[in-house]
Amino acid sequence: MGNSFGKLFQITTWGESHGTALGVVIDGCPSNIPLTTTHIQQELDRRKPGQNNLVTPREESDQISILSGVYQDKTLGTPISLFIANKDANPSEYKEIQNKYRPSHADYTYHKKFNTPILSGGGRASARETATRVAAGAVAKQLLRSFNIDVVAWVDSVRHIQASVNTDHVSREHVDATTVRCPDSAVSQQMIDYISTIKKQKDSVGGVIKAVIRGVPVGIGNPVFDKLDADLAKALMSIPAAKAIAIGEGYQSTQMLGSEHNDILYYKDDKVRTKTNHAGGIVGGISNGESIIISVGFKPPSSIGKTQPTIDLDNNETSLTFQGRHDPCVLPRAVPVVEAMIQLVLTDHILRQQCNTTF
Amino acid sequence: MGNSFGKLFQITTWGESHGTALGVVIDGCPSNIPLTTTHIQQELDRRKPGQNNLVTPREESDQISILSGVYQDKTLGTPISLFIANKDANPSEYKEIQNKYRPSHADYTYHKKFNTPILSGGGRASARETATRVAAGAVAKQLLRSFNIDVVAWVDSVRHIQASVNTDHVSREHVDATTVRCPDSAVSQQMIDYISTIKKQKDSVGGVIKAVIRGVPVGIGNPVFDKLDADLAKALMSIPAAKAIAIGEGYQSTQMLGSEHNDILYYKDDKVRTKTNHAGGIVGGISNGESIIISVGFKPPSSIGKTQPTIDLDNNETSLTFQGRHDPCVLPRAVPVVEAMIQLVLTDHILRQQCNTTF
Amino acid sequence: MGNSFGKLFQITTWGESHGTALGVVIDGCPSNIPLTTTHIQQELDRRKPGQNNLVTPREESDQISILSGVYQDKTLGTPISLFIANKDANPSEYKEIQNKYRPSHADYTYHKKFNTPILSGGGRASARETATRVAAGAVAKQLLRSFNIDVVAWVDSVRHIQASVNTDHVSREHVDATTVRCPDSAVSQQMIDYISTIKKQKDSVGGVIKAVIRGVPVGIGNPVFDKLDADLAKALMSIPAAKAIAIGEGYQSTQMLGSEHNDILYYKDDKVRTKTNHAGGIVGGISNGESIIISVGFKPPSSIGKTQPTIDLDNNETSLTFQGRHDPCVLPRAVPVVEAMIQLVLTDHILRQQCNTTF
Amino acid sequence: MGNSFGKLFQITTWGESHGTALGVVIDGCPSNIPLTTTHIQQELDRRKPGQNNLVTPREESDQISILSGVYQDKTLGTPISLFIANKDANPSEYKEIQNKYRPSHADYTYHKKFNTPILSGGGRASARETATRVAAGAVAKQLLRSFNIDVVAWVDSVRHIQASVNTDHVSREHVDATTVRCPDSAVSQQMIDYISTIKKQKDSVGGVIKAVIRGVPVGIGNPVFDKLDADLAKALMSIPAAKAIAIGEGYQSTQMLGSEHNDILYYKDDKVRTKTNHAGGIVGGISNGESIIISVGFKPPSSIGKTQPTIDLDNNETSLTFQGRHDPCVLPRAVPVVEAMIQLVLTDHILRQQCNTTF
Repeated sequence: MGNSFGKLFQITTWGESHGTALGVVIDGCPSNIPLTTTHIQQELDRRKPGQNNLVTPREESDQISILSGVYQDKTLGTPISLFIANKDANPSEYKEIQNKYRPSHADYTYHKKFNTPILSGGGRASARETATRVAAGAVAKQLLRSFNIDVVAWVDSVRHIQASVNTDHVSREHVDATTVRCPDSAVSQQMIDYISTIKKQKDSVGGVIKAVIRGVPVGIGNPVFDKLDADLAKALMSIPAAKAIAIGEGYQSTQMLGSEHNDILYYKDDKVRTKTNHAGGIVGGISNGESIIISVGFKPPSSIGKTQPTIDLDNNETSLTFQGRHDPCVLPRAVPVVEAMIQLVLTDHILRQQCNTTF
Repeated sequence: MGNSFGKLFQITTWGESHGTALGVVIDGCPSNIPLTTTHIQQELDRRKPGQNNLVTPREESDQISILSGVYQDKTLGTPISLFIANKDANPSEYKEIQNKYRPSHADYTYHKKFNTPILSGGGRASARETATRVAAGAVAKQLLRSFNIDVVAWVDSVRHIQASVNTDHVSREHVDATTVRCPDSAVSQQMIDYISTIKKQKDSVGGVIKAVIRGVPVGIGNPVFDKLDADLAKALMSIPAAKAIAIGEGYQSTQMLGSEHNDILYYKDDKVRTKTNHAGGIVGGISNGESIIISVGFKPPSSIGKTQPTIDLDNNETSLTFQGRHDPCVLPRAVPVVEAMIQLVLTDHILRQQCNTTF
Repeated sequence: MGNSFGKLFQITTWGESHGTALGVVIDGCPSNIPLTTTHIQQELDRRKPGQNNLVTPREESDQISILSGVYQDKTLGTPISLFIANKDANPSEYKEIQNKYRPSHADYTYHKKFNTPILSGGGRASARETATRVAAGAVAKQLLRSFNIDVVAWVDSVRHIQASVNTDHVSREHVDATTVRCPDSAVSQQMIDYISTIKKQKDSVGGVIKAVIRGVPVGIGNPVFDKLDADLAKALMSIPAAKAIAIGEGYQSTQMLGSEHNDILYYKDDKVRTKTNHAGGIVGGISNGESIIISVGFKPPSSIGKTQPTIDLDNNETSLTFQGRHDPCVLPRAVPVVEAMIQLVLTDHILRQQCNTTF
Repeated sequence: MGNSFGKLFQITTWGESHGTALGVVIDGCPSNIPLTTTHIQQELDRRKPGQNNLVTPREESDQISILSGVYQDKTLGTPISLFIANKDANPSEYKEIQNKYRPSHADYTYHKKFNTPILSGGGRASARETATRVAAGAVAKQLLRSFNIDVVAWVDSVRHIQASVNTDHVSREHVDATTVRCPDSAVSQQMIDYISTIKKQKDSVGGVIKAVIRGVPVGIGNPVFDKLDADLAKALMSIPAAKAIAIGEGYQSTQMLGSEHNDILYYKDDKVRTKTNHAGGIVGGISNGESIIISVGFKPPSSIGKTQPTIDLDNNETSLTFQGRHDPCVLPRAVPVVEAMIQLVLTDHILRQQCNTTF
């Protein structure tokens, strides 16, 4: 339960990290949207492991196959089934942990919830699962193109190293210019160096991913529970390691007075705009036409190479030194995941708004 | 669309701030849960306006009626319909704004989304709507009692004034000891004084509400999208004026190394525990048996008494001095709303877990 | 659970037959649909008890109140809450049955499912619940008007008395011309006489309601599970006492060869039509532009005045003579219920199709 | 949209008849249910084409692969992804119909709904899609085994040839004893001969499938919309070519008086029973512990070998002689599909009832 997302543009993902394959079925994609494997592959390539030495060395080509729902490079309106084989699942390296719970890892909670072997179902808790989100997000992106909606996410901070990014002009080209996916060239090298240091220490580190969504028309989002920001919050908090979500000024808004935070409306060039954008483009749960600004705080990955105390399945104290491949910092690879989740929410809400516009 | 919440314990709320009444229908509440109007009224009384001089003077008794689903003080398993009359709707005071958009208020976005008069549908964007959330939350609370689950929320900060609260021992009695609902007696008076100052300045102020959920068994939450933290994030972000959500250490976790953040498991008194609780009680989207810690950042209310520039419905520049009754700080009244949304999420997920436990 | 219906135009009904009131909340109705209490009341008046001596003498005016979602006679796009008071609930007449299960009535199944007193929750099994369906259907009807879609249902047979009705021309005026709601004037008096005879015998009788839906555009319905006919089947089978559903030729189609049943396509006056309409307007779960023809078989009501053997709550054999007010034949009052359920399904599917038409 | 079914035990199917593959993802299956490919394959083998000369000669082995959700022959509680390759898709034989609508086939309605080439998306309207329903039903069946619930369906009539079957004793062995899947040995040969005759005439024929569900406990089903019979009606009406659904006496009940139709309750051997079972095991939408009896009327298949008039994509009159492989009578292969849909509904409702039983 809980492996589907979206009301009209609904995805269902499947696959364990150590199993045969991963995949996603997308139901509710309208017909005649241009779609090829290339559209999806280029997004997956941004997330895949082994891209560079900042990330896990697991070797996965993450080759996408479209099994249904597309004909002559256009969507049919029928379910789109996407498939990714697991090629480098290496159960041997998990031997150490088949009887021990990794600290702060989902081994323990999955085991207690499902009463299954800890190296099986827990495979859904692996970041590997997010490949299918990226694949589905690539389909959503094709639909958003028709609306000229553009989503760009980037690594905004790695621990204490904070970037400064202009949300009006940042582009994917800027983001992908460095392996750490931070468009602030002044600090991106510091981030890279810092992650390398942490990696050598067999430790891990977190940070913040920020995103801007440009071109969303006024009126997207559904009060009172399915607010656009509420659905974005759920989408982003469901990404592994996410622990904090902020819209617009986020926690900074708690330090402002109403007279400071209120965004004053004005009219220019046939368009209603606001002079500031403290709200981050969403008011009352509905888009106001300004750029939507959102950020996600990621904790450091729980899988580290250092020896840690823990308990085994019989509740005896023991210690564990995890040898498996893992990322010292998930942020660079999480950038396309954040974009995908945002694209899925927007597409769903844009389709939902179609139902209200004809009267 | 979007006025229902929950999968198994599903609520649907209705009613505009300036209309006849408000209400909520709860479908999916099991039978034979003890429930009387008193259970609900005592929660509503914590949220109602006019309680003290920190909050809006609108006079609403918020008297609850149970119209269905309960017989001889027990739930029937049929839909529970709850009703609250609006007694002090005062449309006259809204004359000023019938042709002008209030800055940062949902007037503009509702108007563009629904193409309806700005003083009508926008009534759903009023904080008044949250009364029905509190009423539904009170029903959920009755069910959570059988599981010995306890939710306590409080005002943790008002702008720069920060409380210090022990999440193991904080109780509702501590919270309700002061009108500002901050259990830290050392700072609660500062908060009260500060809000009074802001009120005199015809301005408004935000802050943070924090909550602890004690007694949740291991195994609650559904990967990969309906994670417990993801559903909590949606629930809380859907509250008016919420702009940031954090679980456990939240953004602080981005400043920690993996070796610092990992919560080490140990076994004591027949129970698996963690030595620290940086995760805030949720790992891989599933509760781990530790207390769940969550916080919500609220922006300052957009309705302020100061004169502000804006535009009218014809896009002409104008200015607006809002005379309507409003809260200088929503936090004290938002405390029961935060609790209610948490109770709704937990109840829903606990019912969902019933389906997985029999095999 | 199970008291909501529809995906985009979603209704949630509440209220027990012997309680204070009944109601329905409609979420997902677009804004700016004309709607007044009159639109709803005229449909409710067709269903209400006490209309004539064919039906139950329970005295209920079934006065509708619109509590939210409508302003200045137009829908707001927010939830529409509709309310009907119970005025003539008469628990005294149910004394006889508070410890005995009525044969073939839901007393027993509700009691076992919910473990609640048999005269309480079982109130949801009363035909009284259908008043809220009719109220919601009246709102759907207002939306269908914009699409020139027209739904007409009628009593097609009462036991062995079979009407002959031209589905191209039958209108509500024809249907409402007699109290039995059969537009075939040649047999309607026979039906009336027969029901009166059955009533005198303290017995009850069933029959068939048939409906035609004219004006549905091609392309409505969603393969493969949410087919238009599948959703109609669910909607109609959920009406109390419904036991059989047929689309187009229904069971008659099992007696035909493919070469006889196939509807040949032709083109005339800028429109694709079929020469016959054996399919009843739905092919592959999608409307084909021809009239949709559907019928519902209703069993005789279980509440009869004759003395019947049964068991009591302690499983002892006993007998029961039910004195409560009831209908000897539900069909005349079920006609607006059938129309309402059809209108709800169509409205939902038409809104769903909005999401597929823009590309 | 519309390719998912079920609320807690939710399946999503995908795949076009002429595409690469078909599949289904099952979300919500509890963990630790025994499941192997054999469990699924034996059900698929009953549905697969080419079994004998009564059915389509298309050669499909319909080999099932389990891609996720199962480990060491037990379910994990994670999504179960099932995959079936298409091996004998033969687009060449569809050349004749790439510009012409087959009469009474979904070509036309899919084309108008989705605006896609008629030989692509329409592939979802093929009976081939039902393979995935059978695969998912086999998983549901494994769960129903723990409850000792048993579903048996059979061919009850082929056009005018009517079987006589004892619903208390009929078993799968009786059903599978003949290729026509009719357990009445006296008439099964007549059915076989008749279908062969029709096949030689290049025509097609329909009939009725009936099913009995034994062992369902009292209390399954959710009033008022998600009644057990309503959900069964939807499930069965969504099967290609289904045109009529009946529960218990079905249309026969319209010919009975209340005093004849009412099932009298009695108590024997620690169990409440009814003397008759006219209701077919469901009262007020909830199971009463008696066997559930349901039937589905299937129209004759639209694909026939005879030359028929039709129109082409430019609306010109033409004629069509379909050369593709097809079934003269779908009933023998539809028997496992009917069982699968029933199993899916029951499993879903049994899981839903788990949420109501703990208080």
